Amino acid sequence: MDLAVPRGYLSYTANMGLKDEAHDFALVVSEVPAVSAAVFTRSRFAGPSVVLSRADAGLRRSRGMVVVSRNANVATGKVGAAHAEEVRRLAAEKAGVLPEELVIGSTGVIGRPYPIESIREGIAKIPTPPAAADFEAAAAAIMTTDTRAKSVHLRCGDAVVVGIAKGVGMIEPNMATLLTFFFTDAEIGADRLEAVFRRVVDRTFNALSIDTDTSTSDSAAVFANGLAGPVDEDEFERVLYEAALSLVRNIASDGEGASKLLEVRVTGARDDAQAKRVGKAVVNSPLVKTSVHGADPNWGRVAMAIGKLDDDLDIEPARVRIHYGELEMFPEEPDDAMLARARAYLAGDEIVIGVDLGIGDGEFTVYGCDLTEGYIALNSGCTT
Amino acid sequence: MDLAVPRGYLSYTANMGLKDEAHDFALVVSEVPAVSAAVFTRSRFAGPSVVLSRADAGLRRSRGMVVVSRNANVATGKVGAAHAEEVRRLAAEKAGVLPEELVIGSTGVIGRPYPIESIREGIAKIPTPPAAADFEAAAAAIMTTDTRAKSVHLRCGDAVVVGIAKGVGMIEPNMATLLTFFFTDAEIGADRLEAVFRRVVDRTFNALSIDTDTSTSDSAAVFANGLAGPVDEDEFERVLYEAALSLVRNIASDGEGASKLLEVRVTGARDDAQAKRVGKAVVNSPLVKTSVHGADPNWGRVAMAIGKLDDDLDIEPARVRIHYGELEMFPEEPDDAMLARARAYLAGDEIVIGVDLGIGDGEFTVYGCDLTEGYIALNSGCTT
Repeated sequence: MDLAVPRGYLSYTANMGLKDEAHDFALVVSEVPAVSAAVFTRSRFAGPSVVLSRADAGLRRSRGMVVVSRNANVATGKVGAAHAEEVRRLAAEKAGVLPEELVIGSTGVIGRPYPIESIREGIAKIPTPPAAADFEAAAAAIMTTDTRAKSVHLRCGDAVVVGIAKGVGMIEPNMATLLTFFFTDAEIGADRLEAVFRRVVDRTFNALSIDTDTSTSDSAAVFANGLAGPVDEDEFERVLYEAALSLVRNIASDGEGASKLLEVRVTGARDDAQAKRVGKAVVNSPLVKTSVHGADPNWGRVAMAIGKLDDDLDIEPARVRIHYGELEMFPEEPDDAMLARARAYLAGDEIVIGVDLGIGDGEFTVYGCDLTEGYIALNSGCTT
Repeated sequence: MDLAVPRGYLSYTANMGLKDEAHDFALVVSEVPAVSAAVFTRSRFAGPSVVLSRADAGLRRSRGMVVVSRNANVATGKVGAAHAEEVRRLAAEKAGVLPEELVIGSTGVIGRPYPIESIREGIAKIPTPPAAADFEAAAAAIMTTDTRAKSVHLRCGDAVVVGIAKGVGMIEPNMATLLTFFFTDAEIGADRLEAVFRRVVDRTFNALSIDTDTSTSDSAAVFANGLAGPVDEDEFERVLYEAALSLVRNIASDGEGASKLLEVRVTGARDDAQAKRVGKAVVNSPLVKTSVHGADPNWGRVAMAIGKLDDDLDIEPARVRIHYGELEMFPEEPDDAMLARARAYLAGDEIVIGVDLGIGDGEFTVYGCDLTEGYIALNSGCTT
């Protein structure tokens, strides 16, 4: 992996008493003013971090992010709102920026107040200015039940795009995503950045579903401080897309309890929106997910999942084709040899299910994972 | 249980080579003409049994049902359509009724043709007329992965209502249900029966979700042959509702891998439809289901699930109340003693989650089950 970093970013991470020992606090800021774009969860139970960040997102000028992990600070009432405001304000002071120039994110258990005293003490220790950015440390500090830190570093001409993300459960982003942040030194206008970011998020984070549960804390933001000068905008969009897709695939294969990445490629739909609906129905079906887990070529469950789109009256079984990888399962009834090949294919780590609806040119690819005993074990234990 | 039976029904069950030894074929018919009402899956991949039965449902005259279990005969193309037609025709001949007077149902694996020779041989052995109805045998013969047969017998004045049902996975009925059939000797007009049945199904089978997956074979029908004479229609509706609810609770607690019945009672909604959406979001959330499985009072996940209704802008966290049984979890932050009581409550077999939205008078109760390692084990094994 190319660990190139963008110019002009500072960071700080620490343990502030939420996790046992690992870092649970991350601050990343640009030394110079940056433009930004951000999207947030549409949850009706969005937490105060989201409310606060969303209110200032319209400025499209943001220096960076501060994240507290292992506690979402959601459904914590007025106390929670005051805590979010205080954490952002104290961190901004230390970083030498304005509070409204920081996106604040928080992730973890819902309904418990922050250990605010210990966070206050922790923030007081942040040096002004913070040290040169360590994006790997930031990616690790925002983790909750993730089994690995998730980051990506890509070049775009003279500029660099770095992305970090966390999230392995409660993931079906809707108009937003889990916690993910992109930092670049590319120079790009705020309007253009906003448009590019929305398109990229729609095809990456909004195409991801681990378990159909939408987090109350989903937030995604990109910061561009311009220190590397102008970039080719098409190339920038392509690089940002690649960075986001890399994180999405990383998150999906690290889905809670997951043993495989599941990609559902829908083609031949009336339009892209229909393709996305079909892809989501397949990638979210527990019966499809368990059969992928068991490497069982039970393609009938894919047909069942497509069939759930009961308002899409143009979906006709007679026109549908279903593939596992390159292997066609429907409409040609697979013989025993074909089923054996399918079983071998499904035993792999990255499974692609292809669905062609035979209607039009719409297409969409969604990302998810299998459903395993590990998911149950992880989520039926003590409150996480 | 009162094993009273309605007058004038005949039945036959047998093994016709789909299951190893248990019965996999069931026929139940009224000796005299009956009125009927039926609803079917809205799946775009509905099988030929559904297509055939739905086409004749408009007649609202039906003598009964024939069911083949362990093979859904779905996504089997023209061969499957011909098989469904042939099985219904042969069974009708033996029963001395017209093919269009039989609802045909089929349930089990998708995408495999029937072992038609062995079914033909089996049907040839049906006596004409069949023997007096054995509803318990019919309930057992329609089972697939059910761990127990499901039937209910209730009196309604001089009449009797018997219901049978199967279904433990691929269950989120939509405008229909899994396979369930009601037989009564009550006398009731076809229009009235249709109206009553739709209301009952909406509050019972359509309020049930095991795993969000909608079957390609869902069918529900009621047959009323009138031999017991007229009944009080309000009482009839109440009895039919009770019978259906009994089956729904039985199905939910026997959901694949389930260890508990989960009931979500939503009140204070703008209207009943909103209450149903909220109930479904909660009962379908894998994170809620796993926390119930683990008896973990993680009520924040209930808040998260409510929050997913992002188009319901009148849902305000500040007005929402969340209960486990009688125990209020939100907005009053539960202390440790309360959490301990909640943990003890959640260790029970029947869990009620109460959600009051504080908006209006709409209410709806939905039924489901917890999500366990057993569901994964059952569904990641060989094709079922």
